[in-house]
Amino acid sequence: MGNIVEPRTLSGFMELLPKDQIEFNRLQNIIKQTYEQFGFLPIDTPIIEDSNVLLAKAGGETEKQIYRFEKGDNDLSLRFDLTVPLAKYVAKNYGVLNFPFRRYQIGKVYRAERPQKGRYREFYQCDIDVIGDGELSITNDAEMPSIIYQIFKRLDFGKFTIKINNRKILGGFFESLGLENQITNVLRIVDKIDKVGKDNVEKMLADENVPADKVSKIIEFVSTKENVVGYLENLNISNDNFVKGLEEIKIVSKYMEAFGIPKDYYAIDLSIARGLDYYTGTVYETVLDEHPELGSVCSGGRYENLAEYYTNKKLPGVGISIGLTRLFYVINEYKLIKENKQKSISKVIVVPMIDDLTYPIEVATKLRAKGINTELFFEEKAFKKKLNYANKQEIPYAIIIGEDEVAQKMVTVKDMNTGDQKTCSIDEI
Amino acid sequence: MGNIVEPRTLSGFMELLPKDQIEFNRLQNIIKQTYEQFGFLPIDTPIIEDSNVLLAKAGGETEKQIYRFEKGDNDLSLRFDLTVPLAKYVAKNYGVLNFPFRRYQIGKVYRAERPQKGRYREFYQCDIDVIGDGELSITNDAEMPSIIYQIFKRLDFGKFTIKINNRKILGGFFESLGLENQITNVLRIVDKIDKVGKDNVEKMLADENVPADKVSKIIEFVSTKENVVGYLENLNISNDNFVKGLEEIKIVSKYMEAFGIPKDYYAIDLSIARGLDYYTGTVYETVLDEHPELGSVCSGGRYENLAEYYTNKKLPGVGISIGLTRLFYVINEYKLIKENKQKSISKVIVVPMIDDLTYPIEVATKLRAKGINTELFFEEKAFKKKLNYANKQEIPYAIIIGEDEVAQKMVTVKDMNTGDQKTCSIDEI
Repeated sequence: MGNIVEPRTLSGFMELLPKDQIEFNRLQNIIKQTYEQFGFLPIDTPIIEDSNVLLAKAGGETEKQIYRFEKGDNDLSLRFDLTVPLAKYVAKNYGVLNFPFRRYQIGKVYRAERPQKGRYREFYQCDIDVIGDGELSITNDAEMPSIIYQIFKRLDFGKFTIKINNRKILGGFFESLGLENQITNVLRIVDKIDKVGKDNVEKMLADENVPADKVSKIIEFVSTKENVVGYLENLNISNDNFVKGLEEIKIVSKYMEAFGIPKDYYAIDLSIARGLDYYTGTVYETVLDEHPELGSVCSGGRYENLAEYYTNKKLPGVGISIGLTRLFYVINEYKLIKENKQKSISKVIVVPMIDDLTYPIEVATKLRAKGINTELFFEEKAFKKKLNYANKQEIPYAIIIGEDEVAQKMVTVKDMNTGDQKTCSIDEI
Repeated sequence: MGNIVEPRTLSGFMELLPKDQIEFNRLQNIIKQTYEQFGFLPIDTPIIEDSNVLLAKAGGETEKQIYRFEKGDNDLSLRFDLTVPLAKYVAKNYGVLNFPFRRYQIGKVYRAERPQKGRYREFYQCDIDVIGDGELSITNDAEMPSIIYQIFKRLDFGKFTIKINNRKILGGFFESLGLENQITNVLRIVDKIDKVGKDNVEKMLADENVPADKVSKIIEFVSTKENVVGYLENLNISNDNFVKGLEEIKIVSKYMEAFGIPKDYYAIDLSIARGLDYYTGTVYETVLDEHPELGSVCSGGRYENLAEYYTNKKLPGVGISIGLTRLFYVINEYKLIKENKQKSISKVIVVPMIDDLTYPIEVATKLRAKGINTELFFEEKAFKKKLNYANKQEIPYAIIIGEDEVAQKMVTVKDMNTGDQKTCSIDEI
């Protein structure tokens, strides 16, 4: 035998113990089931793509983080998000897809980020998007927050708020101030208001050559949190962008209510912008009220054209994304997982106390046929060691089978939490 | 805007349309649910591993097929199976795992094989293994075929046969002939008997310097299909290997019956061997009776030592693997998928015939709250186009809402298969 190699996992790659994996999968399943409840269709694109295809758009910081390599004559890259593969997929299958095309995809993506706590190089994204052929009703923008609401209600990490804004309102407002070319810089500065204070923000905006009267207007704009629609209407801004954005956010607000999202679970927040070069209408962020420091746990928005690098067809869309790996990391750090979470795959463990395993096998087979996840302990060990195994597995019930049980065709059921025991027939379980 | 890049997917990578993806996921879910029903725990290891760790054992043909590349200072490889990552995982987490450790893993693996029909470079493996700490009861070997049985019953691709053999019987038999060093070559030749005929096999064995009297014994051995245990007992071979193997296959046979596998669904087949350098006891293959040409659709076996490259602990195990991507390809090629398969994610599509979508949204929200997957059609299109969309989605029921329905707080339900319509209240649906 050769040398022993240390069995290590690369840093930046999450690899969980089974108990944590059970919980991770439970959360992922909530997301998947909710996406399906809203009628999204599954797709599963390759993790490896041709670099020319995958990087048709990418550049700068993203490109540096990409795992790119050659194999034979192929220049290959690992996907870094699920949006570019979706664009490729929709352009490729344009002729056979049924539009509006509603798809979900849950899968791993790869970015060689500098390793640090809570940053992963391999992580799950859970995405939905609705893609229109040429056009897409604004009503779709109201359904997205209702999906976020259902998911985070079920995930049960405490009270949360879905923040919505509209990129056209932002654009129109800055246009009315003659600052349309400075939006990105100005918003980046304004975003720091909670950290550095109002005075510093005013100073930084002045350094960007924003006149003092406009600075105060901007700060008022991003700070307005109550009756935002009324505030926007009173601004009396008449450029097309602003008027269109205001109209859109009114429709979205109206239908969000019809979707049954309680009023205290969403808010129009004029300070959120998301990727300004990409989103063109509604934008979303989701914050956990008790942990705003975690940032947005579910984001997305409306874009004008999904696949311009792959097709001349205009394909507007709206979508959201949940970064589940990072989310799982932070909810564990902040201990937001409920104590009563699922701890085992099996409901029952069958523990034979006899040599002939025929009857224990028949019992386990009957339970499994009833749809009960059942583990069967085969090893020849002392009784205490067998129960110790069952305890460590955190399986709620043990079925103990000794000679008496075999003779009477009965089983003894032990509640592993309370220690209570009861002897009964298989059908009575 | 720049040039249009052709949105192509690499050859050797399966990328399905949504309808096929729904079916693929349904099959994967059957496998997953069955694994969980038998109490296997989920793990999810990274797709990228350190090359030194992943390739501790590999060599030869496998190594050529590996996607290996550098990023920064790291020498990285994509996993080519789920067994090596399991070995790493068990060795790494030895101190905290509860043995016997029963895990399932379903995930993509990567091999840069020469592209050809039905061969994939990215494909799903669905694996279970039970790993013992130092020792592992032979009874586990009887549970594996019962899991194969449950899965392929539910997958419903027609009658199948689980073939089992024992590596020790093979070894002991060839040892009794003094041919223990020629097992691999001899079995490879014998395996061709159906293709090239008995005479040619006899000739090829003679070329391998196998004496004529032994050739006939070998051919009798691998051709015995009835009362195999009786035949083996009558051979009166007394070496330890053979005796142990015979004892093991008797226990496995006995308990397979207790697990409820019908007798015509399994057979001892002395001609199957699997990877001779790896398996040491029971081995499994599964063939579809009507399509033996597909080869084994689920294979596995017992091995002595899972993780010898990562630890000095002896970790015997037994496991099986289903290559789902290739399986999905062949069942489609051979049209083994039932016509009544699931065709849509949604049970219902709500089709509004009115401008104000408040009531349709409320109806969809109520259905979703009842756990019914519901799609809501938002776009402003002609009635016919809306129904055309619903038809293409193959959603079984459409709920049509016009002005009358809103006024009466009713809905009209249309069975999309029969065309029948009925107006009723939401709760009546």
